[in-house]
Formats: sequence, structure tokens, C-alpha cells
Amino acid sequence: MSLTAQGLSWQDVAATAQKHRDDTIAKVKPAVSNPPGELPWNVTGIPSQLLPKDVLHITESPPESLLSQLSTGALTSTAVTTAFLQRAGLASKLVNCITELLPARALARAKALDDYYATRKKPVGPLHGLPISVKEHISMKDLDLNAGFISWVGQKGTSDALILRLLWSAGAVFYARTTEPQTLMHLETSSNIFGVTVNPYNTTLTSGGSSGGEGALVGLRGSCLGIGTDIGGSIRSPAANQGVFGLRPSSYRLPLDGFAATMIGEEHVVPVVGPLSTSLEGIKVFMKVLIDQKPWLHDPMLVPLPWKATGDLLRRDAGGKRKLRIGVLRDDGMVRPHPPILRGIDSVVSKLSSHPDIEIIDFPPYDHDRAWRIISSLYFADGAAEEKEAIDASGEPWRPLSKFIIKENPNMKSLSVTEVWRLTGERDAYRAAYTKHWNSIGTSLPGPEQKGELDVAAPLAKEDDMVDVILCPVGPGCAPPLNCARYWNYTSQWNLLDYPAVVFPTGLYCGAEDKVDKTYKPMNEKDEYNHELCEYHIVVYVVYDYLGRDRTDGNPTDKPETYTDAPISLQLVGRRYEDEKLIEALEMIMAAAKL
Amino acid sequence: MSLTAQGLSWQDVAATAQKHRDDTIAKVKPAVSNPPGELPWNVTGIPSQLLPKDVLHITESPPESLLSQLSTGALTSTAVTTAFLQRAGLASKLVNCITELLPARALARAKALDDYYATRKKPVGPLHGLPISVKEHISMKDLDLNAGFISWVGQKGTSDALILRLLWSAGAVFYARTTEPQTLMHLETSSNIFGVTVNPYNTTLTSGGSSGGEGALVGLRGSCLGIGTDIGGSIRSPAANQGVFGLRPSSYRLPLDGFAATMIGEEHVVPVVGPLSTSLEGIKVFMKVLIDQKPWLHDPMLVPLPWKATGDLLRRDAGGKRKLRIGVLRDDGMVRPHPPILRGIDSVVSKLSSHPDIEIIDFPPYDHDRAWRIISSLYFADGAAEEKEAIDASGEPWRPLSKFIIKENPNMKSLSVTEVWRLTGERDAYRAAYTKHWNSIGTSLPGPEQKGELDVAAPLAKEDDMVDVILCPVGPGCAPPLNCARYWNYTSQWNLLDYPAVVFPTGLYCGAEDKVDKTYKPMNEKDEYNHELCEYHIVVYVVYDYLGRDRTDGNPTDKPETYTDAPISLQLVGRRYEDEKLIEALEMIMAAAKL
Repeated sequence: MSLTAQGLSWQDVAATAQKHRDDTIAKVKPAVSNPPGELPWNVTGIPSQLLPKDVLHITESPPESLLSQLSTGALTSTAVTTAFLQRAGLASKLVNCITELLPARALARAKALDDYYATRKKPVGPLHGLPISVKEHISMKDLDLNAGFISWVGQKGTSDALILRLLWSAGAVFYARTTEPQTLMHLETSSNIFGVTVNPYNTTLTSGGSSGGEGALVGLRGSCLGIGTDIGGSIRSPAANQGVFGLRPSSYRLPLDGFAATMIGEEHVVPVVGPLSTSLEGIKVFMKVLIDQKPWLHDPMLVPLPWKATGDLLRRDAGGKRKLRIGVLRDDGMVRPHPPILRGIDSVVSKLSSHPDIEIIDFPPYDHDRAWRIISSLYFADGAAEEKEAIDASGEPWRPLSKFIIKENPNMKSLSVTEVWRLTGERDAYRAAYTKHWNSIGTSLPGPEQKGELDVAAPLAKEDDMVDVILCPVGPGCAPPLNCARYWNYTSQWNLLDYPAVVFPTGLYCGAEDKVDKTYKPMNEKDEYNHELCEYHIVVYVVYDYLGRDRTDGNPTDKPETYTDAPISLQLVGRRYEDEKLIEALEMIMAAAKL
Repeated sequence: MSLTAQGLSWQDVAATAQKHRDDTIAKVKPAVSNPPGELPWNVTGIPSQLLPKDVLHITESPPESLLSQLSTGALTSTAVTTAFLQRAGLASKLVNCITELLPARALARAKALDDYYATRKKPVGPLHGLPISVKEHISMKDLDLNAGFISWVGQKGTSDALILRLLWSAGAVFYARTTEPQTLMHLETSSNIFGVTVNPYNTTLTSGGSSGGEGALVGLRGSCLGIGTDIGGSIRSPAANQGVFGLRPSSYRLPLDGFAATMIGEEHVVPVVGPLSTSLEGIKVFMKVLIDQKPWLHDPMLVPLPWKATGDLLRRDAGGKRKLRIGVLRDDGMVRPHPPILRGIDSVVSKLSSHPDIEIIDFPPYDHDRAWRIISSLYFADGAAEEKEAIDASGEPWRPLSKFIIKENPNMKSLSVTEVWRLTGERDAYRAAYTKHWNSIGTSLPGPEQKGELDVAAPLAKEDDMVDVILCPVGPGCAPPLNCARYWNYTSQWNLLDYPAVVFPTGLYCGAEDKVDKTYKPMNEKDEYNHELCEYHIVVYVVYDYLGRDRTDGNPTDKPETYTDAPISLQLVGRRYEDEKLIEALEMIMAAAKL
């Protein structure tokens, strides 16, 4: 039963949840260090000041390295789990990314795995002993399941989500649950339960969202592999904001069975679950381990596409060399990205353009504004009735970005079934048009604007002529200041189209070289908002700090000159269900650009 | 522009459409024979009395045999197309299954293919020269596109449906378009445009629907391969009623792009397109030819599952022999099938049960009534507003089965978006429960009634223990008398679950041995209706003959004693997306049972 239903005020519910979190962190042994009282804007250097060397070594290893050592017995799961519990506890004190740690059950599991290894001299499965962090709304039996709503706090998971059972059977250890925003529908992470999760590179900026707890935790190396969810950018925004890897897989590849959220049964825009990791290998191993277990035998929503080994998915030339054709979409035609983003694209493209096996092609946007109109009309087709009820049931305040996407969203209204069908039809027509657009880039075939010209004998596009992947921004800037992530369409575009999209770091960070273009004339209101954000000249509505304290008044001056230290990340987008080819393309890009 | 919009009465629209049909049949050369004035109930013997031997030989060859001869030049496409035009014209005069023939464009296409072959000495593709019949609502450029509504007659296709373009590129010839019912939502084929399509084996019975024009045409061998669509049984009912093969593939494997229907944008229950054929090889070649062309590159709704070669999809024992585990579902627990259907199952099962590599397991139904409540609530979630508008716009009468499924359907009402989401959630929960049910049959794992028992370490079902396919009825009887196909759930069950399902003939026909069980006590109202139908003691609302004439008054006595000569067909159902394995299982069954 929820705590609100037991008579607690929303403030008391929040206090109870925060105390529970603190209690679980306090149970970690050795005790989690307390950060110094006066913190720099960039807190990514703090762990190395406070944690022992072995903990640093373990937590800064990529998952493939840990898995290799766990599978040979060079590391025990107990050592690895203890290290990540330590660092996750510290991360939470720095950026407020944890809803609870699970030291007792995680260490019991780790010990069982270590015992198994000691007896059998082999790992239990391909994830033997690896700690994995989990976004809160993914059900764990007997643990809280609140999806960011005060009124849901106290509801317990009745069983473990299928994805956790599959990871478990491969050998994973679950040790940390991470924060998410009210409604799960922000590109930030701000709730009345736990306050705001901030960006470790620059704590005046957001960690992103809605998987922002994961983003911040992985960014601080309190996790090397975590689970997020994405219906508009919720895996990719946190991955980008912290400069880690994140994959939004195509829909119906990984099981959503056992997740708490509003709008269950809504299928016009399908949410997906996917990984965030400190390495691209971590992304791959996560996908492979799950799909190799044939999850479609247990979840009938899933498509039985086996996970293809990467290495031979791109086209080859006559000599057998891999060939990659990259479409570059610098700007969606609606909101121009900030200078550091364009610098990031230019930097990667310049490194690739001389590569003999990579072809760079301009990929113009196709009516992305229409995509936003469709998706933002479909998100809350019931007029957000469920979100309103879940928020208002406790009397908790509406967080600024809940207001933004629901109450201030001009496309949000309560629709009739007929209107939903019409919009779904528009979605499908847009998908068809975008397919035609993609197939027409770099060829002489007609694009989507030519209607009704097809007859039965007209040629269809040839696969060998097609662009393989699109390189584009993840958002219209790096991690924005708190409460300012108001332009979703660099990510939600690919949700509407259901294209897989992976985020990767460029190795670049915002700095003094990123000058505002003072001569720029914004194209529209959204572009203007984003342009002003460039100089941090934004209207900040209400700001909470990471402990949930209102610091609105102090905000307009309480900021650094620039987005200093914010990681510059990019997005690579593939065709629907070409998740593996997308990853192979990114491997080739990273090797070619020496990322 | 529609003819109604041009001011024609619905009767004049129907007369215009029928005249056009007759004119196109009259253009076939040599002239299509006229059947004798006095026809027997069973008209399947008529073609052999009226058509020349070479036409009979060609049209009674299965598609794989024709393709083999076309690909070696032993037959010309012109000869084959001419033969099928002949026989289709005659079929239409016998059972009213054609909306128009396309002699000019079909023979021009056939000639072009013959010329290609003459020049290049090779076929243009794997369907080189094969005539394929097409259900009317699949768009052909510049031809009518009415979906069975008077008010839509006169609307023309603006382009060819993608599926036709793909078949064309493989070498197909399109020569015949076939009838469908008002709304497309009957398991019969009755419209005010063309009247009723009847069953060639017994013209007092229905050809089934909604692809009943295809069913009757393929049944009379006026086509060896045709295209139907299915959202509740519309491929399988006509295939079963005529004793031919029909496949409802899993959703999103074949392109629906370019189809006319109401409820575009509705995705709670997804319609599919699929083949009807005189042979199982015909079904296979249709699927393979389409999927081998990677239609997902052109239709973004499709899943990129390659077509797997059959022959190695079933499990093998240690000695390498194929093993097949068949679940037998004789009765859905709601409406008991008529005696001939149970005889058909018993006959096949008895032939299989002694086979050393086939295991027969009882497969109990799991709450099929709930499935019907969900699907029949979701079919017309807008309160059938679009169907009402499309029918009432012309003043045409409501056909009895349009009334049945819309106006007399207690689950049909106009829903809110919230209610649709709730029902979609119920659909998904039912799918999950049915998966658990399937996985529990023949094992010791918990079934769907055990809730909340799962924890992360609980074992999941093993693929090797699972039933492979379900053998079950296609309907609660053989082809029913006109206007009596009122129980959909032996087919719609698998639409709700999105399981592939193939219909095949047992080689048996209804006859004197099929006695009514006079002692049977019906379980409920639907069961009682079906039981009465057993003796043909049904309340017939309004009956039209195949030329559209009302013969209601004459009906109650105007009937044979039994369902004499109606083919007895069965259905084999596979897991979602195991279409190829389903076909391989049927191949093994047909070989084992010598079908």
C-alpha cells in the first residue's frame, strides 16, 4: 500500500524515502566516504581523492575487462560488488543519483557466485559476478516501485521484471537502484521524492533524464553497466550528458514485462529498455546476453530476432574491405545545435572524411517538426489523465518539466479514439515517407514529396545504394542547466521512427573555444529559446538543488560563465532493427576517428 | 470520385459495378462458357464439363508445377494466363467470386514475360509468368478500391500496393480481382455491390470471408494462388470452407502498404495479408518470394525476419531424426465443434499417433472467452463510426453479418482512449498468460493462474520441453449456411495472440456419417446457436442469393438435409513469428498422415 494512502503528507513520504535511501547507503561496508562540504562545480575528481586504489581500479575498468577477470577467477564478485557499492554510495552523495542501495542482497548473491566458481571452476554465465545498476521503475520483488510519483511510494514489486531474471540467469548482481523524474517524462531527473540529480561534470547542469540516475551513476563510474528506459530520449540524454555510451534499441527486442509507469497499454509510441555503459563493449554484451536467451519465448511482445555477431554486417567492396556510408545531419532544420555540438560533429567528420572506406553524405532533415507534432500529440493521448491523477493524489507540486510537457504542451489534449487512429495513421505515413527519404539520399530515386507516381513496374531502391547510418546531435546542446531541457526532438525523432540510436562520447568537452554566434537570427520560438540557452540567458522557473531544496531565487547569478566541462557527445542512428549493424558502424567510426 | 457522390442510387452503383464485372468477363477470349441453367448444389464438377482439356490441365496443376514449367519454357505465361482467365470467368458465373477480370493488362504482361523468356532464355524471377488473384481492397493503380462499401465504389487506387510491386518484380501476372463483404468484417462474403459469394461444394453454404472471393475462386481452381487479408479469420475461413490451403502469417512480415479499409491507424488488432493456394508449396513460395525481397527496406512497419528454409527447424533427437510435439485442442471450451470437425481431428490424430517421431499432447484451451471479449471490444473501438459512415453514406442496407458484428455485438461500444489502453493492457496480459500456458503444457512449470510467484532465481521454461504447434478446428463447423457464420473465435483467438496459423484440407467431406448428437446439452447461448446450426435449425435473417436477389422467404425449406460435400479442414497454429516452423510441421504431418 502506498504511503500516501496510509495518511502521510507528500513531504513525509519524501522524507521517508530519503531516509530509507540514506539507511541503505549507511549499511555499505566499508563505510561510504563523505565528500568535503565545499564542492567544486565539477565533482568527477572527488572519487579519486576519497576511494582506495583497488576500488578505483575496479570501478574504472570497463565491463568487458571486469567480466574477463571474473570469468577467470582473477577477481571475485564480492570484491567487484563491494567496490561498486562504495563508489555508488559516494556518487549519490555527490549528485543524488540513487534511490536505494542493496548491499545485503547484492553481497549474498556475489558470495553465492564466488562459491559457485570456487566449486565448479567456471562462471555461471556470461555476466558472472558483474554488478548492474537498475532504474527504479523496473520491478524488483518486494522493493518500492514508484516511477517518480509520491503517491506511488510504498507500492512494492510483486515479482522481478523479466529482464532482471534473464540478466540474473547470466550471472548479474543487482546492487543499486537509480533515480528518475516525476512522470518519467523529462529529459532531466527531478522528483519530489529525491529532488534533483545533477551532472557530475558540472553540477549546475542536468544529468539528463529520465534515466538520469543511471547517467550520473555511470558517469561517475559508480556503475559500469546500467539499465535505462527511453520513450523520447531517456537513455540517450543521460548517456550524452555524462559522456558515456547509451543505446536505444529498436522496439520489442528487450522485454518490458514488469515495469511500472503510467500509460500501460499505450502502443502508439513504444517505450524501450536499454543499456548505459562506460564502454561500447558493455552495450554489446548487455544486448547479446539478453537476446541469446531468446526472451521472446517468455514475453510474447518480443520479436525473435537473434543477436547478430558484429564484424560482417556492413557491405564489402570487391576486395572484401568494409564500406560505410554515413549520412550527416548537423541540424534538424528547427533548432540549431549549440556551437560545441557542431564542433563535435565537425571534429568527427573531419577525422572520417579522409578514410578511404568511409563515405560522408549530407543527410538533410525531413520535416522533423511534423514528427514532433505527431509524437507530442500521441504521448499523452488521454489528456495525461493518469499523470495528473498520480501527481495530484498526493498533493505534491508539479515539477517544472512535468508542467512543461503536460500543462504547457500545445499538442497535448484528450483525444478520441478516432483522433488517435488518425494520428497513428499520420505516424505511419511519416514513417513511410522517411523511409523513402532515406532510400532517396544519394540516389536518383524519387523522395517522399513525389506522391502517387508509383506503378507496379517502378523500380524500388536498392540496398547497396543506401546510407547505412545517420550521424547527428543527441540534443540541441550539451547538458542544459536545470529545468531547461525543453527540446526533445533530436532524440524523440528516432523514437517516432523506431530507429535504433546509440550515443557515444567524442572525447571533447565544452570550454572557452565555444563562442556564441551573436549574429545568429533564430528561426522560431524554440530556436530562440535554445539560442538564449547558449548564453545561459534562460528564464528559469523553479530550481531545486540536488537535495531537493528550492534555490530559485539564487539561480540567475548562481551559474558558471559557460557549460564548462560538459561532455560533447554524438548520436549514431540506424535503420529499424539494424541495431547490430549500427554498433558495427560505430566501432568502425571509433577506430577510424581514434575515439 | 465515388459514384454515390456523383448522384447514383446505391442500386445504380451496384448495377454499374456488376455491369463492369460482366463486361470484363465478356472480354476474355476464347469466350467464357455459360453454365447450364439448372445447377446442382455442388458445382465443382461443372468446369470439367465445359472447359477444354488443356485449360483443365493447367488450372488443376499446383503452382509449383506451373512455375517449374514456366521457368523452363515448357509453358508460356500467355497459355497459363489465358487458362486461368477462362476458368475464373466460369467460376464467377458459378459462385459469384469476381469483381473484375483484367484480360488486357494480364495478357500484355504475359506477352512481355514470354518475350523476355524468348530473348533471354531465363525467367524474370521466381514467379515468372504465374497468374495471381487479388482481393479487391488491395490497391491497383487506376482500378476501383471500394472495400465492399457502395459509397466507396468509383474511388480509384492511386498507386499499386507494395505487395503487388514485389510480386510483379518476381514475375507475377495479375488477372483477377475478387469479392469481399461489406465492412470486410464478416466470415462470409456478402455485399450490396456484388451480392453473395457462395461455396462451390454446396451453394447453400458460404464461401467464407472476408477473403471469400479468393476462397471460392481457388476452390474452383480459377486461381492456384491468391492474396487475402485476415483480422479475425478472413484468410482461414475461406480456405477451410473450400478445402484449400491458407496462411495467416504473423503480423508485420508482409506489407499492408496500399490497402483500402476502415480503421486505418488502428493497431490494437493488426490485420495481415497472406496467401490462399491449392498447395502448401504455393503458400511457401508466396512467403519466400516476398520476404526474400526484404520488404522491410520499403515498408518501415515490417520486421526484418528473413524467410528460413524449412527442413531443419524442428528439434532433432540424438540420431538426427526430426521430432514434433503436437498439442491437440479439440474444443475451445465455449462452442463445441460439429461432428464432422471432430471426426476430422480424430482422423488426423489417429494417423499420427502411431508415428514414432510425433508426440500428441492434449492442449487445453485457456480462457478463450476472455480472448473474444477483448478482441471484439477492440475491433471497433470508435463505436464503428467509420463503418457506419461508409455504409449509411449511400443508403445501402446493412448486410445481416454487418449488423451482427456491429449493431448486435454486446462488446462493441465507443471507447475512450483510457479504455482502449486498458483493453490493450488486458490483451498484453492475456498474451503473457497464454505464453505461460503454452510453456507449462507437458512440463512441471507453473501455468498462468499462478500469479506473483516469480522471483529472479525462478527457472524459465526450456524450449526443448515446449509443444511445437497446436492442431485445432478452423471454426465450430464446416462452411455454415449463408448468414450464419457468427462464431469467430476458433480463428480470432490466434489473431489476438498474433500466432501464425495455417489451414489445410483433411481430404474428408461432410456426409451421412456425420450425425447430430441429440443428447448434447449446450453450455451457453453461442453453443446452442452452433448446435442448432448442426441440424440446420437456424434462424436465417435475410438471405440473398449469389446474384444479390433476396430469397429469404424461400430459405427455411430451400436447403439440403446436411452439409453434404462441405470440405473438412483443420488449422495448425504456431508460436508468434514461427511461420516457417509451422509450415515444416504441417509438411511432416501431411507426410505422416498421408494427406
